[in-house]
Amino acid sequence: MPAELGSLLDVSAAPGQERLGRSRDDLVDFSHGDVDAFPPAPGAREAVVAAIERGGSAAYSPYRGHLAVREHAARRVAEFTGAPVDAETEIIVTPGSQGALFLVLAASLVPGDRVAIAEPDYFANRRIPLSLGAVPMPVALDCTEGQDASLDLEALDAALAAGAKVVVLSNPNNPTGVVYPEAVLRAVVDRVSGARALLVVDQLYSRLVFDDREYVHARALPGAEGRCVTLLGPSKTESLSGYRVGVAVGPAEVIARMEQRLGIVSLRAAGYAQSALDAWFEEPDGWLEERIAAHRDIRDGLLERFRAVPGLHVRTTEGGSYLFVRPPAMSVSVGELVRIAREEHGVVVTRGEEFGTATSTVESFRLNFSQDRDRAFAAVDRLVALISAHLVGMRA
Amino acid sequence: MPAELGSLLDVSAAPGQERLGRSRDDLVDFSHGDVDAFPPAPGAREAVVAAIERGGSAAYSPYRGHLAVREHAARRVAEFTGAPVDAETEIIVTPGSQGALFLVLAASLVPGDRVAIAEPDYFANRRIPLSLGAVPMPVALDCTEGQDASLDLEALDAALAAGAKVVVLSNPNNPTGVVYPEAVLRAVVDRVSGARALLVVDQLYSRLVFDDREYVHARALPGAEGRCVTLLGPSKTESLSGYRVGVAVGPAEVIARMEQRLGIVSLRAAGYAQSALDAWFEEPDGWLEERIAAHRDIRDGLLERFRAVPGLHVRTTEGGSYLFVRPPAMSVSVGELVRIAREEHGVVVTRGEEFGTATSTVESFRLNFSQDRDRAFAAVDRLVALISAHLVGMRA
Repeated sequence: MPAELGSLLDVSAAPGQERLGRSRDDLVDFSHGDVDAFPPAPGAREAVVAAIERGGSAAYSPYRGHLAVREHAARRVAEFTGAPVDAETEIIVTPGSQGALFLVLAASLVPGDRVAIAEPDYFANRRIPLSLGAVPMPVALDCTEGQDASLDLEALDAALAAGAKVVVLSNPNNPTGVVYPEAVLRAVVDRVSGARALLVVDQLYSRLVFDDREYVHARALPGAEGRCVTLLGPSKTESLSGYRVGVAVGPAEVIARMEQRLGIVSLRAAGYAQSALDAWFEEPDGWLEERIAAHRDIRDGLLERFRAVPGLHVRTTEGGSYLFVRPPAMSVSVGELVRIAREEHGVVVTRGEEFGTATSTVESFRLNFSQDRDRAFAAVDRLVALISAHLVGMRA
Repeated sequence: MPAELGSLLDVSAAPGQERLGRSRDDLVDFSHGDVDAFPPAPGAREAVVAAIERGGSAAYSPYRGHLAVREHAARRVAEFTGAPVDAETEIIVTPGSQGALFLVLAASLVPGDRVAIAEPDYFANRRIPLSLGAVPMPVALDCTEGQDASLDLEALDAALAAGAKVVVLSNPNNPTGVVYPEAVLRAVVDRVSGARALLVVDQLYSRLVFDDREYVHARALPGAEGRCVTLLGPSKTESLSGYRVGVAVGPAEVIARMEQRLGIVSLRAAGYAQSALDAWFEEPDGWLEERIAAHRDIRDGLLERFRAVPGLHVRTTEGGSYLFVRPPAMSVSVGELVRIAREEHGVVVTRGEEFGTATSTVESFRLNFSQDRDRAFAAVDRLVALISAHLVGMRA
């Protein structure tokens, strides 16, 4: 591995990988969701234990996953997204959504290929192409507070004109919480279709949308057929991350190439754990609404706290469980702030530079607010006090 | 992905991926072990269910795995292999042994690099380097019946002189069941050490060794320190394949690069399933001896049946649960034989060409004899009858 790639792939500051300071009772790790605060959706555990008990037939599966698991997931994903999914050919069970993202990119890109990526966006959207020798071309996501989000379509046009084979974005966006407006998605699909490229949409958070906002599934838009791979899974809203299962749905020939790659990297998602998907989209009535309401409550409490800091920028999360916060001018860098918060105040957040290279991104940090409400409020009180103490013009 | 790579990565004939003919009651799938016939080692299920119940702390781990899991595995692997393992830096929990193999090769090879691979050997030892753009250089394993196995050391010297950075072999060998003699391993380690290369030894079957044969762990040999990565896991002998966990132990800097790659492909082995390793090497007294004896009994029954065919070659398995069978001249190709056995006789075996390109390899087929004894005997009776019916000079 070339040295510069080693540095790029450094995992020491990736979300969840930070070395913590001394353990403390009030520590809140905002780098990922707390699955004790929001426990796993009902039914998954029972389904997995039943699979373990079934034994041999559950231990091994075709690389793309057990057919029965794919049949359930295909039917539910088709209903949810509003476009058909063939269980035999158009869906693959993956080792988490990260696995799905790696597989679709590894199946689509060779060294030197260009790939258009929204920025800011999930750090792996940039790292995976680089690790494959491909060339990411950033397309700026404008998430200014108080207006609809928009993508720099000129940059997208330029990337496609330069031969970009794949366009990658998360919707809702990680880290900003933006839900893409229909008009933006239509513009993207039109361009991808016209360029005969592939659109990869990471919809990991698409069941967690706030304030009755309209959510549009790109794969159901005109022109998306045969051109769109959608990544979904129960790791976030449903808190089933410990099982490491997700799915990708897309054109049969892309799914077939993803299966080939999965055969190389780890053969299959764990045979027993695949059954966690049997409980997905099968939660009791009201379960999802309650989970959304609880997250909205925490979001609103954190927004209120952050917005008490003059000059701080933060957009109201439209979907997902992230806040992306840009503090005002401080006497320390954001990187320093993040380190001090972690080591001295028991507050773990993720540096903005994991999500892109633009100044507004690098000068921000991300919180996953899928946490215990009161502990999260207390931790952000400490963080806000820390920021306030370092505001330029204030005494530190 | 280039077209030729797509063809290389074709999964339709990979072990376990074969499309079966009509289902039948007496079907025996020798492409992988039957974990109903040899049920999972005790304790793993309980450990995983306890992890699910622990919740959040078990769902997420550092990419290289839960520290407590690594501590147990490091201690036990050190005892088993006779050389120390640092739990913090020298071990990584992987998505199965396939995951370990992919990660060590992806962390060590860039396009154009040469890699020496024993042949015949596990199909992924060749496919993974090719998928990374590296160049495999076969080193013939001589497994003639009735003599100690040997490697073509001249070919190994030539590969290392040509710059091979990595040498890969499985011990016990998959598909032939060879256990490498100490002298051969010493010669390999000396050469790898002299060339400052890396030796990767897949020891997935190293607990299943027959007839009190001496088994030498390459990592414990003089010169191996800092030059050897050992792949181990509980998928085979212990029948824990449904959890998809394995480990790699090796030099700290290689393990660190493997963790970076794991962060790219799927973040971590499933958080809950990692705890299956807590039961590994903790089986009750006598459990392993009984499992070995049961496999030896099946091996001997199958060898007797195959050796009733005049001119058929098969070596007595020294370790692992494979037989690699070369039928005598037949009126059909081995590929045809394998197809007919699968589609018409309910006997699934794996074509030799999955394991190498030499004539003796391509003209063989592999069976995993970790099966129900009586069903396996009956299936091989059908297979032997099929071979006998197609012997050149016999009526078909």
